[in-house]
Amino acid sequence: MKIDLDGILNSRRLAITRALSFVENSDDLDMALTDALFQHLGHAYRVGITGPPGAGKSSLADRMIEYWRSKDKRVAVISVDPTSPFTGGAILGDRVRMGQHYSDKGVFIRSMATRGSQGGLALRTQDAADVFDAAGFDIILYETVGVGQVELDVAQAADTTLVVLVPESGDDIQAMKAGLMEIADLFVINKADRQGANQAMVQIQSMLAMRHPEEGIWSPEVLKTNALNAEGTATLMERLEAHQQFLLEQGIFRQNFKDRIIAKIRNHIDQHVMDQFWTAEKTDVLNGSMAKDDAGRIIPGQIVKKLLQL
Amino acid sequence: MKIDLDGILNSRRLAITRALSFVENSDDLDMALTDALFQHLGHAYRVGITGPPGAGKSSLADRMIEYWRSKDKRVAVISVDPTSPFTGGAILGDRVRMGQHYSDKGVFIRSMATRGSQGGLALRTQDAADVFDAAGFDIILYETVGVGQVELDVAQAADTTLVVLVPESGDDIQAMKAGLMEIADLFVINKADRQGANQAMVQIQSMLAMRHPEEGIWSPEVLKTNALNAEGTATLMERLEAHQQFLLEQGIFRQNFKDRIIAKIRNHIDQHVMDQFWTAEKTDVLNGSMAKDDAGRIIPGQIVKKLLQL
Repeated sequence: MKIDLDGILNSRRLAITRALSFVENSDDLDMALTDALFQHLGHAYRVGITGPPGAGKSSLADRMIEYWRSKDKRVAVISVDPTSPFTGGAILGDRVRMGQHYSDKGVFIRSMATRGSQGGLALRTQDAADVFDAAGFDIILYETVGVGQVELDVAQAADTTLVVLVPESGDDIQAMKAGLMEIADLFVINKADRQGANQAMVQIQSMLAMRHPEEGIWSPEVLKTNALNAEGTATLMERLEAHQQFLLEQGIFRQNFKDRIIAKIRNHIDQHVMDQFWTAEKTDVLNGSMAKDDAGRIIPGQIVKKLLQL
Repeated sequence: MKIDLDGILNSRRLAITRALSFVENSDDLDMALTDALFQHLGHAYRVGITGPPGAGKSSLADRMIEYWRSKDKRVAVISVDPTSPFTGGAILGDRVRMGQHYSDKGVFIRSMATRGSQGGLALRTQDAADVFDAAGFDIILYETVGVGQVELDVAQAADTTLVVLVPESGDDIQAMKAGLMEIADLFVINKADRQGANQAMVQIQSMLAMRHPEEGIWSPEVLKTNALNAEGTATLMERLEAHQQFLLEQGIFRQNFKDRIIAKIRNHIDQHVMDQFWTAEKTDVLNGSMAKDDAGRIIPGQIVKKLLQL
């Protein structure tokens, strides 16, 4: 594909759309796009928003977009959808509500299907964000439904990750605390007018209290919002900006950027080295190694040795 | 570690426990264990049971164990726990209920923490199961709470995967259908005395109806149970056995076994080749490549080239 660098840098819709389609559909996650955009990256602030279905992520995203737009920031939204392998369709769910921003030229909303591609998602998400970054968007908002690996991938691609929960999430919090704790910079208990909001808040805070605060490490915070009537959203935006400020001051924002590029290079090389190693001959030897029945089978360690000597 | 093969083959508790600790704690997922056990593997039937917190997986597991014990089958239970990186503790939750089987010599229950180790989990789970397989256990039951990647890992290590849901899971079904569909051989709607059970059943069935049935491919089924009073569990066990029978007849059971060993070998080699490639020099070059500021930075593609030539 020819990358229309000029079009992207000038934020032309067609150029962006084409680049995004390339990212989404290309089987070959090569370095062409990264190389082309490289000198123009590192400006956008990347925010991830995740949580269980029904937590009100989209309403909250709506409020956040409103806020950013009021500050004249340009916002790109990347909705990462777990896709059914049967239907090929993405789950839009309540995302359509973000429709109010569709007509706003300062907002670009794009769904990305995960296509069951475990490994590639973090890189694809990052590539898509890079397109928006180069196109001069100030904020890139990843939105995803909480389904494990996808969350981790998105968190990896984000500077700040919001985990949105509802007062009833108590059980989920218990069950998923490992995953959530790893990724959340800010916990948001949305629909906080419902019963149990304070309890959920205390539950998270007591989990967080087990951490030892460290110099240069952000201490995650817990906030309450009610996105529908904009309660608590001003404070949320303030804390979000505080986190961004923290990242900038500590040099973490810059380091995130570098780490993402390094991860991309490393992954690309790993892929290449593996492809070089796994010749048709070696693949045949491996797959054929288990052909014999129990008595005649070679010990796995022997197969390893043989393959490494080929 | 010295593997007490004789002890494992004779199902001695201490030998099994030591081998499992080795699997859980070893940083070096080497082939020693696989090599030692290899000729004694391939007999146990591996069943995964997953679903959201509160779906009643443990009660259901209880019923399944009861059934298997009534047929004189020896059962190993591997509880895969998402572990908090802060506390290091595993979430036992309602699993303590399986306590009734703790005193039964024909049942061995072991928790495995995932330790945030994304990649290694499938392999570790498989290694643990291999120990039980070699020790002559007939059934290996993996139990896990539904948190994305862990589910996939467990499904990969299992011959049959049960996804347990409750009547209220409607939203979750929508949101997670991609993931669930990929892994479920049997859907179980537990606590089916609650409202909405039939609706949830129809919802899943209509999702399943989008698939085109294929020769030699199992068509997932939807069942209703109420584990607490054993309603529907007899049918569940019957369908479980039907799936096992199907796997045996189609040669899939055998193929699963081979595929797991092949994946293990492949992963081991990949690890080795990567370790060989990433010398200290290359790692330094990569990490140093982003040290310069924007103007002085080398294009990523150039770094790739340089690293591949080193």
